[in-house]
Amino acid sequence: MFNAIKTLRYSKWFSNLTTAIILFYASVLGFKTVDSIAQPYGDMFLLLDSFVTIYFVFELSIKFLAEDKKLDFFKDSWNIFDFIIVTITLIPLEQTSFAAAARLMRIFKILRLFTARPELKRIIDMLIKAIPSIIDIVILMFIIFYIYAIIGSFIFKDLPSGLWDNFLTSMLTLFRILTFEDWTDVMYEAMDVHSWAWLYFVSFVIIAAFVFFNLFIAVIIGEMQKLQDEGMKDEIHDEHKKVDQLLIEIQELKKLIKEQNQNKRENL
Amino acid sequence: MFNAIKTLRYSKWFSNLTTAIILFYASVLGFKTVDSIAQPYGDMFLLLDSFVTIYFVFELSIKFLAEDKKLDFFKDSWNIFDFIIVTITLIPLEQTSFAAAARLMRIFKILRLFTARPELKRIIDMLIKAIPSIIDIVILMFIIFYIYAIIGSFIFKDLPSGLWDNFLTSMLTLFRILTFEDWTDVMYEAMDVHSWAWLYFVSFVIIAAFVFFNLFIAVIIGEMQKLQDEGMKDEIHDEHKKVDQLLIEIQELKKLIKEQNQNKRENL
Amino acid sequence: MFNAIKTLRYSKWFSNLTTAIILFYASVLGFKTVDSIAQPYGDMFLLLDSFVTIYFVFELSIKFLAEDKKLDFFKDSWNIFDFIIVTITLIPLEQTSFAAAARLMRIFKILRLFTARPELKRIIDMLIKAIPSIIDIVILMFIIFYIYAIIGSFIFKDLPSGLWDNFLTSMLTLFRILTFEDWTDVMYEAMDVHSWAWLYFVSFVIIAAFVFFNLFIAVIIGEMQKLQDEGMKDEIHDEHKKVDQLLIEIQELKKLIKEQNQNKRENL
Amino acid sequence: MFNAIKTLRYSKWFSNLTTAIILFYASVLGFKTVDSIAQPYGDMFLLLDSFVTIYFVFELSIKFLAEDKKLDFFKDSWNIFDFIIVTITLIPLEQTSFAAAARLMRIFKILRLFTARPELKRIIDMLIKAIPSIIDIVILMFIIFYIYAIIGSFIFKDLPSGLWDNFLTSMLTLFRILTFEDWTDVMYEAMDVHSWAWLYFVSFVIIAAFVFFNLFIAVIIGEMQKLQDEGMKDEIHDEHKKVDQLLIEIQELKKLIKEQNQNKRENL
Repeated sequence: MFNAIKTLRYSKWFSNLTTAIILFYASVLGFKTVDSIAQPYGDMFLLLDSFVTIYFVFELSIKFLAEDKKLDFFKDSWNIFDFIIVTITLIPLEQTSFAAAARLMRIFKILRLFTARPELKRIIDMLIKAIPSIIDIVILMFIIFYIYAIIGSFIFKDLPSGLWDNFLTSMLTLFRILTFEDWTDVMYEAMDVHSWAWLYFVSFVIIAAFVFFNLFIAVIIGEMQKLQDEGMKDEIHDEHKKVDQLLIEIQELKKLIKEQNQNKRENL
Repeated sequence: MFNAIKTLRYSKWFSNLTTAIILFYASVLGFKTVDSIAQPYGDMFLLLDSFVTIYFVFELSIKFLAEDKKLDFFKDSWNIFDFIIVTITLIPLEQTSFAAAARLMRIFKILRLFTARPELKRIIDMLIKAIPSIIDIVILMFIIFYIYAIIGSFIFKDLPSGLWDNFLTSMLTLFRILTFEDWTDVMYEAMDVHSWAWLYFVSFVIIAAFVFFNLFIAVIIGEMQKLQDEGMKDEIHDEHKKVDQLLIEIQELKKLIKEQNQNKRENL
Repeated sequence: MFNAIKTLRYSKWFSNLTTAIILFYASVLGFKTVDSIAQPYGDMFLLLDSFVTIYFVFELSIKFLAEDKKLDFFKDSWNIFDFIIVTITLIPLEQTSFAAAARLMRIFKILRLFTARPELKRIIDMLIKAIPSIIDIVILMFIIFYIYAIIGSFIFKDLPSGLWDNFLTSMLTLFRILTFEDWTDVMYEAMDVHSWAWLYFVSFVIIAAFVFFNLFIAVIIGEMQKLQDEGMKDEIHDEHKKVDQLLIEIQELKKLIKEQNQNKRENL
Repeated sequence: MFNAIKTLRYSKWFSNLTTAIILFYASVLGFKTVDSIAQPYGDMFLLLDSFVTIYFVFELSIKFLAEDKKLDFFKDSWNIFDFIIVTITLIPLEQTSFAAAARLMRIFKILRLFTARPELKRIIDMLIKAIPSIIDIVILMFIIFYIYAIIGSFIFKDLPSGLWDNFLTSMLTLFRILTFEDWTDVMYEAMDVHSWAWLYFVSFVIIAAFVFFNLFIAVIIGEMQKLQDEGMKDEIHDEHKKVDQLLIEIQELKKLIKEQNQNKRENL
């Protein structure tokens, strides 16, 4: 019995089932906020709600029962997180005056996906590992933004749109230009006053958006492939060791044959 | 005769010809919907229509005749699909009251490209194979969208544009922001009420569009290259086996020479 | 003398100088069309014009004189192209009534870059080589566009914007959506009539823009890297041959030693 | 004592601390330009200002004291740059009439990040190294822009928006289309006069934005990976040498054994 629970708890399809139920429940919750849909299917929503609550309790019990030492269950902070979320879902909050809070609770319900699907944690881990290699490009981007924002808030300060009012709004405007969002509107407004303003905008688009943004993508893709190439490098490394071994074997052979020759000469 | 048909059926240029004819026919059909073009060239369109219908029958016959056992032809569901499409094109639907249905039939005519060009099926297969490695990033994207949609529909609910009316419209608005489509309009509207709203939008753009969207691209590119690198890994693996064989050969050599030495000593 | 001309003609810096002069001249020509700049510097432009014309004649003479057999010069179609362009630039067209034609001639002047810089031809060659691997994705894109255009021109035909009037305009509208250009305006218009229209647009954006467009990029990047990896594969292949040779050498050794052993036994 | 200073000067955390302080100070300076924030926290800003000035002096002293020969300090132009910046920050410029100049001085303060963080210089170096491989694509892009700008300013010259007034504005308009910024507005305006104008715009988007822009990204990513692959190629090269050595060793072995055989025969 205990083994059956343990197999169930670590089986792929149990994790997939929980993922599917959370995703399905979250999607349905979304539709619930649309009034025209919510009313006719009201009872169905209630049924689903109860089902998911029960499933959550069931899933948590499996996780608890699959533990060798029951107390270890509470040593993992994700389990405690799960436990609190499930406990709160048991309280019929939506009927009380905490309805607004209940709505925000859904954020935590969807965060349960991280406990149901360890692959998600792995992607987050990978992203965190990639930070050191991205940080310098982010700093360079910040320098470019900073220089352009100082110049921009200095020259275009008095434009009627107020997009260059102070340093902070200039930064936001530059961020908008980075995403190409109506950047020509900003440029044409500036060009009405300073006809050479296109130089400022075109150079920013080329430097920030074309060069550095692509560098940023290149680094992310490079990091992903480094993880993949690791396997290949290992194989090449393995072979290196084998070739080294070959060399040693052959040198021993040579010594053996030379000894043979000497023995013979001595014999003669 | 049978061999000639078979060579024809599996020849590259026959597949290319069929592809070209379908693409040409589909393009011409497109121009036909433009009134100013359709009228003067009416007769030409009719001629082309007949020609393509005849070619379709001819091509299907070749496929049928190239089969070793004629009945096997109907075992492949794509052949049945072809057969039905071609049969329906023989009915002069456009003159009847089913003209609207005939127009939608064109969708199926262009789907015949899949039977004419097996490479297309291969790309679809490759995409399906790539799904497992994308699914976790899609789930992560869903979590990010979900959290931002709940917060957005909570805070910006009463904005006059109605872009945050309920959870579903919030999701659609966030999807729009992901494509950078007029996202600053949405932000500026929100900033009129909540001056700190830029934090919500800028963080979403950075997390969802910059980080995760590029991760998504990185994974697709990675999958494509994995298929390509497979060949290289195989070659490296082949060499591993050869080096292993070398080691065995040399060890046998060593044994041989040692035996020799012993034999000699015994002889002495 | 002849050798000096030949070294000059194939030297890197001569090609770079010609490139720089053409690019500089082309840029200046651009400024010439701006009235406020053209008038004060009129004489300078005339001077530059004469200089470039003379340089073009000089460069062509070098190319001609560097030829071993002078008649071979006219066997290369690019040389003939150069010859015609340079000859026409000698005619003072801009003063005549052919001024408009002279302006369009600039297109050919900039095309001379291809003869001055062979690297450009190489990139074009590489792109042409990459076509076979892109063609299937382009066809798949066409299928997706076609299906969506038929559905779109069927359902949204009567929208006031006229963006779905006929099949061709629907194609153009879909192309616009592919570039994310104000695609939400198109969607919101359609959603006013058919509230579920977001499904059509969001699915198109995901399928056409997210999946297939990235596949397209992945293939281009893959092609670029294949060319690069070729070198690496060659090295691995070289090693394979060497390991094969090693095996043969060792097997011969074994045979030698076995013969030795047999000889000795026979001797005994 | 001297050694302690030297360890401090080249330690990773000292560089990180300086980076963090500059970034923090630069961010705060940004908030200072927002009036509503600047006034209540005025004293705090003054305090921070003094702290950063002192830290800058301290950091520069460490760099100076860590030098083996004190005079070598002024041989590095970056150190002189640092020295000038720090000296100027000691002058209370903001209280004088040079307040505007002081504001632009911030650009130099943030450029100090390059001296605090050598990784940034490395990225710039890498970008400079990548220029030769990008230059041909940039020239090709220029050719495409040039040809389209000449045609555009020829045909669309009289459109009311003035986007094709002269060659230079046409270039700017094409650059805008490259970023997909409201490019359909430009196209629809042109289509009102020339109904076939979509051919011009769609072809430009496909050639310039789809093909060449992606080629540009592919080259940048390729350059990044070349640097990464270098390591792998070295390993493969190392192995080549070892296999060569193996071959030589085995051939010597063969010679040895053959000699043995001959000796024996002679002995017999």
